[in-house]
Amino acid sequence: MIYLDNNATTALDPEVREAMLPWLGDENYGNPSASYRFGKAAKKAIETAREQVAALISAQPEEIIFTSGGTESNHSALRSAIGTWPDRKEILTSTVEHSAIFEAGEFYESIGYVHRMNPVDSCGRLDLDAWESALSDRTTIASLIFANNETGVLSPIAEAAAAAKSHGVCFHTDAVQAVGKVPVSVADSPIQMLSISAHKLHGPKGIGALFVNQNSRFQPTILGGGQEGGRRSGTENVAGIVGFGKAAEIALAAMDHHDSMRQLRDDFETAVIEKIEGIEVNGDRDQRLPNTSNLSFPGVDGEGLLILLDEAGVCCSPGSACSTGSVKPSRIIKAMGYSSDRARSSVRFSLSKYTNAVEISDVVSKIEKAVGKLRIVMPTSGSRVIINS
Amino acid sequence: MIYLDNNATTALDPEVREAMLPWLGDENYGNPSASYRFGKAAKKAIETAREQVAALISAQPEEIIFTSGGTESNHSALRSAIGTWPDRKEILTSTVEHSAIFEAGEFYESIGYVHRMNPVDSCGRLDLDAWESALSDRTTIASLIFANNETGVLSPIAEAAAAAKSHGVCFHTDAVQAVGKVPVSVADSPIQMLSISAHKLHGPKGIGALFVNQNSRFQPTILGGGQEGGRRSGTENVAGIVGFGKAAEIALAAMDHHDSMRQLRDDFETAVIEKIEGIEVNGDRDQRLPNTSNLSFPGVDGEGLLILLDEAGVCCSPGSACSTGSVKPSRIIKAMGYSSDRARSSVRFSLSKYTNAVEISDVVSKIEKAVGKLRIVMPTSGSRVIINS
Repeated sequence: MIYLDNNATTALDPEVREAMLPWLGDENYGNPSASYRFGKAAKKAIETAREQVAALISAQPEEIIFTSGGTESNHSALRSAIGTWPDRKEILTSTVEHSAIFEAGEFYESIGYVHRMNPVDSCGRLDLDAWESALSDRTTIASLIFANNETGVLSPIAEAAAAAKSHGVCFHTDAVQAVGKVPVSVADSPIQMLSISAHKLHGPKGIGALFVNQNSRFQPTILGGGQEGGRRSGTENVAGIVGFGKAAEIALAAMDHHDSMRQLRDDFETAVIEKIEGIEVNGDRDQRLPNTSNLSFPGVDGEGLLILLDEAGVCCSPGSACSTGSVKPSRIIKAMGYSSDRARSSVRFSLSKYTNAVEISDVVSKIEKAVGKLRIVMPTSGSRVIINS
Repeated sequence: MIYLDNNATTALDPEVREAMLPWLGDENYGNPSASYRFGKAAKKAIETAREQVAALISAQPEEIIFTSGGTESNHSALRSAIGTWPDRKEILTSTVEHSAIFEAGEFYESIGYVHRMNPVDSCGRLDLDAWESALSDRTTIASLIFANNETGVLSPIAEAAAAAKSHGVCFHTDAVQAVGKVPVSVADSPIQMLSISAHKLHGPKGIGALFVNQNSRFQPTILGGGQEGGRRSGTENVAGIVGFGKAAEIALAAMDHHDSMRQLRDDFETAVIEKIEGIEVNGDRDQRLPNTSNLSFPGVDGEGLLILLDEAGVCCSPGSACSTGSVKPSRIIKAMGYSSDRARSSVRFSLSKYTNAVEISDVVSKIEKAVGKLRIVMPTSGSRVIINS
């Protein structure tokens, strides 16, 4: 199998697994909130992980709140702002947010909020002037995706956060796809909240974090036993947290590997473009995650291509892994001004540190073969057909 | 070490660990939402776990929503009702709820709701007449703990749920301590929502479930990619879910072991009462979980006792594991009408399937010794002193 869907989820790093195992045995199962030594060992392990996660984004450990994942982190950020500034009734996001923010925005709209989605250009880059104009003292929170999950396009976070700050608006970024793939720092930054997910950086599924600047106001979503400094209650997922910490530590140490990943991704794109007619790259080719390639295959149905690639042992994605069974064309590609046809013919390939040149060369051949097949089956359009498998 | 704090958390069953390991390796890390076969394997494992968890409470698999734990489940239940019936402004709970419900109730009170906490008697049993009188068409949700975490006292769930139903009020129960320890069935029951946590039944930490009756209205708290049938978004904690499923399967098969656990607990209580003067049992001795013993040691500071027992290698708890570092006397014991002194002198011992008779006999001696020591140090009162350790 060749796995090129690392923006959906990543393989657990064997070192992460090793770090987790002691916390999944019968030796270390104490409740971190317990007063006895057996519980305190778990508490200590959590605090070490908190330092590791904090270090990855240059935060202070006490600014890290462990959550069950990126989606919960995003939701908690929005809900905190909603609770903190109840008289502000506008939520500013963008048209290229992950569904965790998009759906939350739509929910708040359904209960009386205005959900402003800032536009992007054809490269998926935020319109900063529009962003600045949309901010006001009616804005509850401004939330902007750090790197888009489908195209990998990086947002102008520093500028967008500074604009929010100048309007006195709380700024949050969904950095789930960015952290571990590009340097992300909250030090001396106007970013007030930032979401991370462990399983996007070779950590376990079901664990994430929300960074909250120590000077920012925060209102918890999940109340109870007062864990995480009262900011997120519930018995801690100790093994998951320890694994997340280890994954963060490894990601921080591997920052200089990004260039080789970018090179591999570029080689992949160059080869596909060279061998297959009409390929177009979705998203800004410079301001982009080093691991992501979102390609449009004109005249080819993306879903059909995915099926053939799956048969050939290649895992990739129509964009977001979240749209289970959905046949709707990508909301993100359409937000960049493209047609439903282009959206439907687009496929996301996302590499990891485990991807190698042999796999890339192999995948290019498999894509070439699959596209050839599909263009014979449906030579003129991108409409979907059932592929006999 | 003798571990008698199983209401705080339990040891992971080695079979559960075995079931989880394949999902923590580099062989099975696909995203369950992905369309390729590699992802579908994860999806299938989740659905098997859903069947296992559903079977434990006689629910339908589609009535099970996986969450990050009992606290999230409780919170999601309340929030769903708040969203579904926005014009109803009263929340009915009891004075013996876990802090996850108590704190949520207090939060809603802070934003304009009335939080009615139904009283219990000196045995910790709900006043059903008061419960019935408190229900009205102003009640958003009635939430009652199935079995109290500190005393193990069982609530009259069937009657309380029936009363809620007769008033057209949504009924939820926090069954985190009950499921796996006593038979719990939602079949043909007016229970509309029910919370479960895996780590209380020898499953992993960081995973839980909310049962939602298929005919009940439900509004999700965490929105996004639409996982869990749109009722709880976020990439699934596959290993955790698989472990939860296995733990549920094991718990269901072991239902007939409860009697021996009850016998062991009763032997423990009998021995402690016989050997130490003045012991009082907190909570109804019949309507109680088979594994829990909450004892008051008059003239002894519970925290001091915990410290000495920790030194002697015994893990037990002042009541709730959640009150990190708290020196406040138990809210639950006080709700039963007892003094702060009695609350402060109370300690919870909670057994598991791994507890054996040798451990129990050993613990009884250790308690006897520790209590003797403490009664010499502070012969007249239960006020706290620093024990040199």
